[in-house]
Amino acid sequence: MEFEESGIGEECGAFGCVAAGEWPTQLEVAQILTLGLVALQHRGQESAGIVTSNGANQPTYTTLKGMGLVNTAFKAEDLLKLRHGNLGIGHTRYSTTGDSELQNCQPFVVDTLHGKIAVAHNGELVNAGALRKKVMRHGVGLSTSSDSELITQLLALTPPMEEDDAPNWVARIKNLMTETPTSYSLLVMHKDVIYAVRDPYGNRPLCLGRLVPISKLQGAGTAGDGDTEGWVVSSESCSFQSIGARYHREIQPGEIVQISKSGVKTLSVVPRPEGDPPAFCIFEYVYFARPDSIFEGQMVYTVRQRCGRQLAIEAPTDADVVSTVPESATPAALGYAQESGLPYVEVLCKNRYVGRTFIQPNTRLRQLGVAKKFGALSDNFAGKRVVLVDDSIVRGNTISPIIKLLKEAGATEVHIRVASPPIRFPCYMGINIPTKEELIANKPEFEDIAGYIGAASVRYLSVEGLVSAVQNGIAASQEKDERIGSTASSNRRIGHCTACLTGKYPVELEW
Amino acid sequence: MEFEESGIGEECGAFGCVAAGEWPTQLEVAQILTLGLVALQHRGQESAGIVTSNGANQPTYTTLKGMGLVNTAFKAEDLLKLRHGNLGIGHTRYSTTGDSELQNCQPFVVDTLHGKIAVAHNGELVNAGALRKKVMRHGVGLSTSSDSELITQLLALTPPMEEDDAPNWVARIKNLMTETPTSYSLLVMHKDVIYAVRDPYGNRPLCLGRLVPISKLQGAGTAGDGDTEGWVVSSESCSFQSIGARYHREIQPGEIVQISKSGVKTLSVVPRPEGDPPAFCIFEYVYFARPDSIFEGQMVYTVRQRCGRQLAIEAPTDADVVSTVPESATPAALGYAQESGLPYVEVLCKNRYVGRTFIQPNTRLRQLGVAKKFGALSDNFAGKRVVLVDDSIVRGNTISPIIKLLKEAGATEVHIRVASPPIRFPCYMGINIPTKEELIANKPEFEDIAGYIGAASVRYLSVEGLVSAVQNGIAASQEKDERIGSTASSNRRIGHCTACLTGKYPVELEW
Amino acid sequence: MEFEESGIGEECGAFGCVAAGEWPTQLEVAQILTLGLVALQHRGQESAGIVTSNGANQPTYTTLKGMGLVNTAFKAEDLLKLRHGNLGIGHTRYSTTGDSELQNCQPFVVDTLHGKIAVAHNGELVNAGALRKKVMRHGVGLSTSSDSELITQLLALTPPMEEDDAPNWVARIKNLMTETPTSYSLLVMHKDVIYAVRDPYGNRPLCLGRLVPISKLQGAGTAGDGDTEGWVVSSESCSFQSIGARYHREIQPGEIVQISKSGVKTLSVVPRPEGDPPAFCIFEYVYFARPDSIFEGQMVYTVRQRCGRQLAIEAPTDADVVSTVPESATPAALGYAQESGLPYVEVLCKNRYVGRTFIQPNTRLRQLGVAKKFGALSDNFAGKRVVLVDDSIVRGNTISPIIKLLKEAGATEVHIRVASPPIRFPCYMGINIPTKEELIANKPEFEDIAGYIGAASVRYLSVEGLVSAVQNGIAASQEKDERIGSTASSNRRIGHCTACLTGKYPVELEW
Amino acid sequence: MEFEESGIGEECGAFGCVAAGEWPTQLEVAQILTLGLVALQHRGQESAGIVTSNGANQPTYTTLKGMGLVNTAFKAEDLLKLRHGNLGIGHTRYSTTGDSELQNCQPFVVDTLHGKIAVAHNGELVNAGALRKKVMRHGVGLSTSSDSELITQLLALTPPMEEDDAPNWVARIKNLMTETPTSYSLLVMHKDVIYAVRDPYGNRPLCLGRLVPISKLQGAGTAGDGDTEGWVVSSESCSFQSIGARYHREIQPGEIVQISKSGVKTLSVVPRPEGDPPAFCIFEYVYFARPDSIFEGQMVYTVRQRCGRQLAIEAPTDADVVSTVPESATPAALGYAQESGLPYVEVLCKNRYVGRTFIQPNTRLRQLGVAKKFGALSDNFAGKRVVLVDDSIVRGNTISPIIKLLKEAGATEVHIRVASPPIRFPCYMGINIPTKEELIANKPEFEDIAGYIGAASVRYLSVEGLVSAVQNGIAASQEKDERIGSTASSNRRIGHCTACLTGKYPVELEW
Repeated sequence: MEFEESGIGEECGAFGCVAAGEWPTQLEVAQILTLGLVALQHRGQESAGIVTSNGANQPTYTTLKGMGLVNTAFKAEDLLKLRHGNLGIGHTRYSTTGDSELQNCQPFVVDTLHGKIAVAHNGELVNAGALRKKVMRHGVGLSTSSDSELITQLLALTPPMEEDDAPNWVARIKNLMTETPTSYSLLVMHKDVIYAVRDPYGNRPLCLGRLVPISKLQGAGTAGDGDTEGWVVSSESCSFQSIGARYHREIQPGEIVQISKSGVKTLSVVPRPEGDPPAFCIFEYVYFARPDSIFEGQMVYTVRQRCGRQLAIEAPTDADVVSTVPESATPAALGYAQESGLPYVEVLCKNRYVGRTFIQPNTRLRQLGVAKKFGALSDNFAGKRVVLVDDSIVRGNTISPIIKLLKEAGATEVHIRVASPPIRFPCYMGINIPTKEELIANKPEFEDIAGYIGAASVRYLSVEGLVSAVQNGIAASQEKDERIGSTASSNRRIGHCTACLTGKYPVELEW
Repeated sequence: MEFEESGIGEECGAFGCVAAGEWPTQLEVAQILTLGLVALQHRGQESAGIVTSNGANQPTYTTLKGMGLVNTAFKAEDLLKLRHGNLGIGHTRYSTTGDSELQNCQPFVVDTLHGKIAVAHNGELVNAGALRKKVMRHGVGLSTSSDSELITQLLALTPPMEEDDAPNWVARIKNLMTETPTSYSLLVMHKDVIYAVRDPYGNRPLCLGRLVPISKLQGAGTAGDGDTEGWVVSSESCSFQSIGARYHREIQPGEIVQISKSGVKTLSVVPRPEGDPPAFCIFEYVYFARPDSIFEGQMVYTVRQRCGRQLAIEAPTDADVVSTVPESATPAALGYAQESGLPYVEVLCKNRYVGRTFIQPNTRLRQLGVAKKFGALSDNFAGKRVVLVDDSIVRGNTISPIIKLLKEAGATEVHIRVASPPIRFPCYMGINIPTKEELIANKPEFEDIAGYIGAASVRYLSVEGLVSAVQNGIAASQEKDERIGSTASSNRRIGHCTACLTGKYPVELEW
Repeated sequence: MEFEESGIGEECGAFGCVAAGEWPTQLEVAQILTLGLVALQHRGQESAGIVTSNGANQPTYTTLKGMGLVNTAFKAEDLLKLRHGNLGIGHTRYSTTGDSELQNCQPFVVDTLHGKIAVAHNGELVNAGALRKKVMRHGVGLSTSSDSELITQLLALTPPMEEDDAPNWVARIKNLMTETPTSYSLLVMHKDVIYAVRDPYGNRPLCLGRLVPISKLQGAGTAGDGDTEGWVVSSESCSFQSIGARYHREIQPGEIVQISKSGVKTLSVVPRPEGDPPAFCIFEYVYFARPDSIFEGQMVYTVRQRCGRQLAIEAPTDADVVSTVPESATPAALGYAQESGLPYVEVLCKNRYVGRTFIQPNTRLRQLGVAKKFGALSDNFAGKRVVLVDDSIVRGNTISPIIKLLKEAGATEVHIRVASPPIRFPCYMGINIPTKEELIANKPEFEDIAGYIGAASVRYLSVEGLVSAVQNGIAASQEKDERIGSTASSNRRIGHCTACLTGKYPVELEW
Repeated sequence: MEFEESGIGEECGAFGCVAAGEWPTQLEVAQILTLGLVALQHRGQESAGIVTSNGANQPTYTTLKGMGLVNTAFKAEDLLKLRHGNLGIGHTRYSTTGDSELQNCQPFVVDTLHGKIAVAHNGELVNAGALRKKVMRHGVGLSTSSDSELITQLLALTPPMEEDDAPNWVARIKNLMTETPTSYSLLVMHKDVIYAVRDPYGNRPLCLGRLVPISKLQGAGTAGDGDTEGWVVSSESCSFQSIGARYHREIQPGEIVQISKSGVKTLSVVPRPEGDPPAFCIFEYVYFARPDSIFEGQMVYTVRQRCGRQLAIEAPTDADVVSTVPESATPAALGYAQESGLPYVEVLCKNRYVGRTFIQPNTRLRQLGVAKKFGALSDNFAGKRVVLVDDSIVRGNTISPIIKLLKEAGATEVHIRVASPPIRFPCYMGINIPTKEELIANKPEFEDIAGYIGAASVRYLSVEGLVSAVQNGIAASQEKDERIGSTASSNRRIGHCTACLTGKYPVELEW
């Protein structure tokens, strides 16, 4: 819950779709892209964009972009313009301060010697500064500060540069991947093909799905390959359900996949430097991803529940009830309750209508703070000792009024249990984290954090606990993965980026 | 959940505030009204309005109205215009088809021979047609079809009608109450006073709260009367927490309460016809109210939990897990789980970004329906028999795709348990219910409702079960009420309107 | 031009249309109303409204209202809702400070014992205060401060008041006319009829037009009565051309005209008190009306040109060229040039894109003021003495920077000639005039107005000059009127309200 | 008037401002830019943009862009963000079909190896296709189809390309000018300098102005150089008056001017190929420019008046009155009247409130067409033969209903006189002209154009007549120019682009 309040957020969500079979397709590609983005909306609410291509030899691209949520950014009549698309990619962008402009809205489309390409990007290039200089030294002007434009220009300026040469986009993408190690999951659309790319460290997620006839959806396993209506690629698998797609598999770290109307094909797998483990962002599990998404063969909800169980083992509490700060901490709270044997109850009722509030600060109402967002369900805890599980405490200024609220409503003690370790370091790979100074874990107050926020006690999950909660589920899942035929997963090593918790970054940072 | 989808809804929420002590007040009355309405937003999202008065002898009224949610309807700069208010009333309106116009937005303000009055109304007059004729026969033109305008004109045309007579609003309100038995909870503001009125049957809720210094909020019972900063009156007590008010008591059926800067005073209690029990709308408990509100001394959440327990007794299931259709059915589902001893798990993940969707219907996506609103948390129920608790099934067309979704994701059986009885009859007292023909309980398909929606079994809570779940909690609460000194509650009889379930209306319907 | 800047303005424009022949009509009544209002837009830009009726015995009324210009206030899809109208009335409202709310937008529609009536009003009741008291004493609450609501309630409360009595609207309208002498032009729609009413003094304009087949429009006089497609009634005849209507005649002072599908019929003519002359607002000629409108048989443009000629006679100038402050003063300037024999040139070029400007005041740009609205066409006057004709000087603060601009661009002298007398008194009959203190003619600076505004000389048209310029044209026009068969005009006396110039009001003012 | 209706239009208006003296400046640069653009609004209404720089060594650029008119596109609070600008450039864009997107809104800002540059462009590169290929062959991706982005990338990719080299923008601009002969007027802002550039053919206008103290404005010639508060550069001089600037001089064809806080300096003059005359667009005189602008030393209004005189000589008419289609044809009509000795009268009254009309076409109203835009001032011409002067007839479909309107209102004959020759050829230098097939002059109907549009006769100005009306005024003006010290004008040759009339393009067209 603190995450939500703290302004922490990821860069983006990316989604692509290619209709299978004969073109022009009957598949409503633009509507599938729209619904796919709505399902990825939690990854970015600043702006949204879609580009479709009819896939012809001299292709027509149609672009739709807007500020705000997908439902606000796109109008029904605008979507009609995209109805001739046989394939397309889309993007939702996270709102970071200062650059909230339509101009930065993705996908980026540029015209090159070999035709237009469209690029959607999730992540942040660790060596963006050096790459910008390189591009500009070549005489290219950059019109935004975004990595996505930088990526498109890097793809454009790689040889060949004669019109009659074959464009060879794969070579260009591989070249890009040698220039920058991480962090990116990319969709590159050119004419009739989408290239789906994940950086060698696999820092950001990306996975494939298969559109099957709706009638075949029910009853897993009955839709054969002949029933494929199209292919989708998405930052998270949670988007598949809403469009009638089946989860196929993850794109592997370093893998370049070509998606066309005739199917999905691995073109190359760019390796990491010898000895480097993969570095999938562990906070995708902790907070960013939707609980029904699947990473590395396991459902995010289940990992969060395991974190709660692990927390109950590491930090047991002498209390009467366990509860959650709704809604993101609920799986962890249920896990804590199961492991501890304490009863699970709801203590807070969320007012879903509280938005950006324009109430001027004044002595009375300012002090109520977060209380207007929650109502206390006092019958469930009055006179009791409460264990309140939250997914994180970042700045420490939102949990405090909640504790006050519960005590006012009759809780005798409030024990805070946090289902992730304290964040202490900045992220340079796409996550917008408060400055080091703003993080509660780096402040003097952290010494007596319980006193500071008014809790009876505060305990965090350990880094080891988090890593084991995440990684223990992968072995089993890999077995399952192999059973359903994903050859890519068999040679997969395990490894996660915990830089914001430990300061150990997956690559050396050069500026 | 079906309620939400079915378009059932109540007329409104009303909220009032009077600053205590010396005027001009330091209390931010307009901001308190705004926050109060935000907390009542679930009762009406069509439009919102606020009227404040400076309370002077020749008072200045300032009005602010707008379409949509409170946060949309009011702009920060508009609120500044209201900053000189020492008292005020506000209203949120439910969207019923056809009349969604600013003109119908409440509070209504009219100028009368004795100055302006402002009226906010929750409910529906059962004899509105006859009353309209009466008013028009007197030569009054009515500019809207709303009951609220009718009420203001009824108040205006009651004698005295000479300027130098005392206005005697109480006599006028009592006169109004003899003209119409139900259904209304009313706030009438005149100059420096708010009259809070509940109809003799108590069909709609209304309760009082006391603004105490924020510093005194924590630790119940420590704020004495001397610490009162103002008085608030609200459709539901859930609004009190967000403005730093303490729950004081309910307005009793038939009671006229005067709220002024010097406090709260009962002016009159208009009785029901001999033998008639009160008729508080039982669906306030089942669906309309926010779970943290208190009616008749008991928390709504707790009643819903009792409904779930009762349902488990009436309709036990041979299954593996119990779950909820989030979010409104969760207390009932937890109650069912507790009573049945089956484990409670989450099976659905709600995508909070799905709004009005503009996706054109087509063969593929139309069939997915509600699926885009929910993700399945399959790890929690794959291979298991699920009891899914919902708060109601009204039309029967939203639960069906949810069941399909769960089965697709691996549920072996889905048993539906509904924590309220089937709705079969129209409401004439303020609730917008689908036509009799649209109600699933009146359709032939109801014979085999389980087959129709694809469930393994379907069971509803009985009317008796609902009534007992509601009323059993009241005795205990009354004792508690008396302990904290509410004399009004001691002579309270118990009774609820179940007309939509049973066809037994609290008053004879005359047209 | 000063008028435009000075905030002087009239209350409104009213427009009505009834389709002739069989109903449902093929005539696009709603679109005709919309175009009619666009043509009356200069009379009010605050808000616009239309009400249509299908004219059935239990009629359906459909209302469309919005803030701003007609083109902004109405959306194309909204107009579709009105497409079943067989008759209707519309209104554009002038923006006066403070009450700019949708609630005050006309037409007013109220339900009465004898069905709904819709009322559109242009004017201001001189005894509104007393009438409000009277209505309220009867027990009616008034929800706005507008005269239009007051009129509808006055019409509603006149007997008969039994449902089965005939409604007798004409008696009610006559009763209203005895209660208030002026100022109003009214359209009252009830079921299948529009009553068009002009007050006994004829203070505000109102005229009739006949919709003829477009093919018959060209070549005056060829369309017989059998070719009538519908009837229109309008504040000004300028609206007729844009909808393909022919000017029929004025509604006479005191006349009540019934417009129905079978034609136009005079129901009554309410007389003035013995000896009182009519009092048509002379400023309709000077400023308010569009130049192509016809009043009392003469075109407004021609009257303004005569004012310019008269001004040249009263105030000749030793100068080189004559010019105008575009655009409203152009006919007077051309008249001045013709009479004086001086050449007419353009000296100012208007930038039509200058709107409400958000430029913050600062030392540099504030001083430029009106200059950004005009460019100087210096070639036409550099080194010359300029006579600049304006239609009025009200506050004196807009003409001053224009004079400065011309002198800067090379004019050797700038002589101001004003084609109307100075305004010195308030209007209580519908015109929004600055307070007496703000009027330049009541300020000490008026003594040396030329010095104050930087002109070489300033001269105003005399009251007598204005009156003769207006009235000399009427005799001839009356003859013409009679020739085309308007019997109503033959017994017409001549008389105009010059209260704002002379302080002589047409009726005694009672408060 | 036909121009306005015909969709002909120019690409853009550009405006720049540099504060003189010490920085930070007191001059409100952003507000001056805004007012400057408002004055250029007639050159483009699609979108508007401003970029300001604080001029520091590591400069901060602030950008503001929006769709629609300047007053709509910029909000007051947005302008505040630009208040630290010491210099800046702005742009208004013409709406051409298809690409109406914020993305195409100028100025373009790109980051290069030597810092950010901002570019505003008026014109169209005749060899854009070849240049795009060249840029892309270098490996640059182009994100829009606009020439402006192409120009910025061409500037960026010219050597030097090492960070520590001096940026040498002048060399880059000269290089650009050798790559493309025409058509462009450019503003390039870098750090603390604006480079103002006009192509060697001088096809698009561009001129300089000097901001003087407001107090010194009046009385030409009194403000010495020491009184300069800043420098402005603009597509047209009409913008100077609204910001308190004095016209300084035109930028010469091929000239590169540097504007900095220390003044204005010619850096280079790039020559045309030997023997080529300059080719200033003659339609700037005929239609595009505002009448109070000055080109080549003469006021546009005066040239238009001369065209009217010339037309009267070439095409005299036996008629009673001369009039205009307001407002653009008025100077020509007055010229025609003066030369012919016929009286000038107004025959049409424009309804300024008619906007985009949403009236659905139907049999009645569709036929009225343009009539709703104009009212006939019939008193001025009934029974008379009218000469109606228009500035152009492009498609021939708007003048026809006007003629019908006048005849309906009593004109006995309507003779059309067009103050420019017929347009027959496309423009490739920035003017959006209908396709050849749509031009009335290329249609069979042109044979009997008078019959086609219903006029008694139609005559156009000859090409020779237009050229002489334009060029005769220049000699005199040059003498004047020299008197006020503009050395640049003395070696100026005369020449204009008449390609759209004659098919003779100033440069060979290569594709």
